[in-house]
Amino acid sequence: MITSTSNAQIKELLRLQKKGRAREEAGVFIVEGPRMAAEIPPERIVKLYVSESYAKREHTSAVDVSCRYGKASAGIPLNLESVSLGGAEVLSDPVFARVSDTKTPQGVLAVVRRQEYTMADILGVNPDKGENTRGGQQTSREPHVLVLDNLQDPGNLGTIFRTAEAAGATGLILSRDCVDIYNPKVIRSTMGAVFRVPFLYTDDLPGAIGELKAAGIRVFAAHLEGENAYDEEDYCGGCAFLIGNEGNGLRDEVTVCADCLIRIPMQGQTESLNAAVAAAVLMFEVGRQRRS
Amino acid sequence: MITSTSNAQIKELLRLQKKGRAREEAGVFIVEGPRMAAEIPPERIVKLYVSESYAKREHTSAVDVSCRYGKASAGIPLNLESVSLGGAEVLSDPVFARVSDTKTPQGVLAVVRRQEYTMADILGVNPDKGENTRGGQQTSREPHVLVLDNLQDPGNLGTIFRTAEAAGATGLILSRDCVDIYNPKVIRSTMGAVFRVPFLYTDDLPGAIGELKAAGIRVFAAHLEGENAYDEEDYCGGCAFLIGNEGNGLRDEVTVCADCLIRIPMQGQTESLNAAVAAAVLMFEVGRQRRS
Repeated sequence: MITSTSNAQIKELLRLQKKGRAREEAGVFIVEGPRMAAEIPPERIVKLYVSESYAKREHTSAVDVSCRYGKASAGIPLNLESVSLGGAEVLSDPVFARVSDTKTPQGVLAVVRRQEYTMADILGVNPDKGENTRGGQQTSREPHVLVLDNLQDPGNLGTIFRTAEAAGATGLILSRDCVDIYNPKVIRSTMGAVFRVPFLYTDDLPGAIGELKAAGIRVFAAHLEGENAYDEEDYCGGCAFLIGNEGNGLRDEVTVCADCLIRIPMQGQTESLNAAVAAAVLMFEVGRQRRS
Repeated sequence: MITSTSNAQIKELLRLQKKGRAREEAGVFIVEGPRMAAEIPPERIVKLYVSESYAKREHTSAVDVSCRYGKASAGIPLNLESVSLGGAEVLSDPVFARVSDTKTPQGVLAVVRRQEYTMADILGVNPDKGENTRGGQQTSREPHVLVLDNLQDPGNLGTIFRTAEAAGATGLILSRDCVDIYNPKVIRSTMGAVFRVPFLYTDDLPGAIGELKAAGIRVFAAHLEGENAYDEEDYCGGCAFLIGNEGNGLRDEVTVCADCLIRIPMQGQTESLNAAVAAAVLMFEVGRQRRS
């Protein structure tokens, strides 16, 4: 058990926790809490840390934990004795509190390897890497891509990942100035979808949209000035949706890349929808059309 | 201008700001910021307060403000000289900072009268009171109701109000243990829809659902065990959707009140959707069916 913050591992962990650049250079990110840790594909766990009190508590009630977290057993070894032998490091509670990013640490912290994705992953043509399966079945799918332009709210981005997985989107493309997916609040609100939905950041969003079009994908921009309602278009073939910034919508130079502007009809005096809501309405319309 | 926190008005304002019960007894709530203040129906403003620096700034650039906030002119009189004569109270910046609920006060705070709604309002059969018009047109609508069971997240509730207005829902019914609509974070995230979408809290959710059914409305529960997909049902007649708590879903005693359990088909390993996303998918399906 590590009881001192001057331990070399703890120093490195603090550096990773504090500096985005350090995490990026190491190709890792940090995940906290037993719920989220249970979602990590085991082969991507670089290092697992648990607090002393978590270790004691869970060791004595391994069965309860297994019930509470359902599939947790896949992600976190529940026998903490074997964990500490097998690689998880136990930290004294004060040391754990020091390395945790949260006010009320939950006793589990993992350093996780980042996964690099290619455009082929985003389009869903690389089923080996895609994790979007249910009950072990991988259904072949037409590309269904969400393109985010300067999205800023961490909760929105997390919710969009979660919704994208459920709606069967094949992947996400984000402009470099979107909020960082590795922001702890984003990670939490993905509810684990961040481990399963392919994504990539790009410095050149118009260029990436050009690649989509070259791959035969029809690109729709959700826009207040769209001519057709979103449900008047056909999404059974490969499709992509451009979603803009919360306050300002899509940038003009991104909008012009679309094949077609669509609008989500709105009643009342609302001027716009929340970005995650707009994305959800569009992505589930794809699912609806492809099912029927 | 008020410069002392021992002023009687300021004492009363602090009491309202701090105590939910005081606000409830007075039948008011508090709205902050110029953006939200501009959404308040003028006849419901009990009292408007502005900070000294806001008054000075906006007085000298009334035209800019009118551009920046668009329809703001309806809600906030922009000539602050006439405002202070006409009823708005100017507070010194330190006093304003004291009464504000936010870390960086925006200089506008309104005490707003609560609006009581009846079941007839929720069903949209009382067009005089409904504010859900666009361009002055009131379209006659079949009832389209959202019923929230123990919803806890302020951001979710605000987003649901905003989405409900845009999707053309006629009203919301909330169990008493839902998060308080008058919570400042909820108010903000409604983007003004709280002033326009009828709602009521009830101690007896099953009883309220019974009233909906007696009014000929078909009641659907969004449920993981639903038999039909949500898009296989017909929402052209009066309809209501039951949406449950973020972590636990619908309570059994509420679920059994539904005429029909429906599910939103999900791919991947996601276990559930965010409550506001689920509500959005269902409400926009109603709009889609009613348009086509």
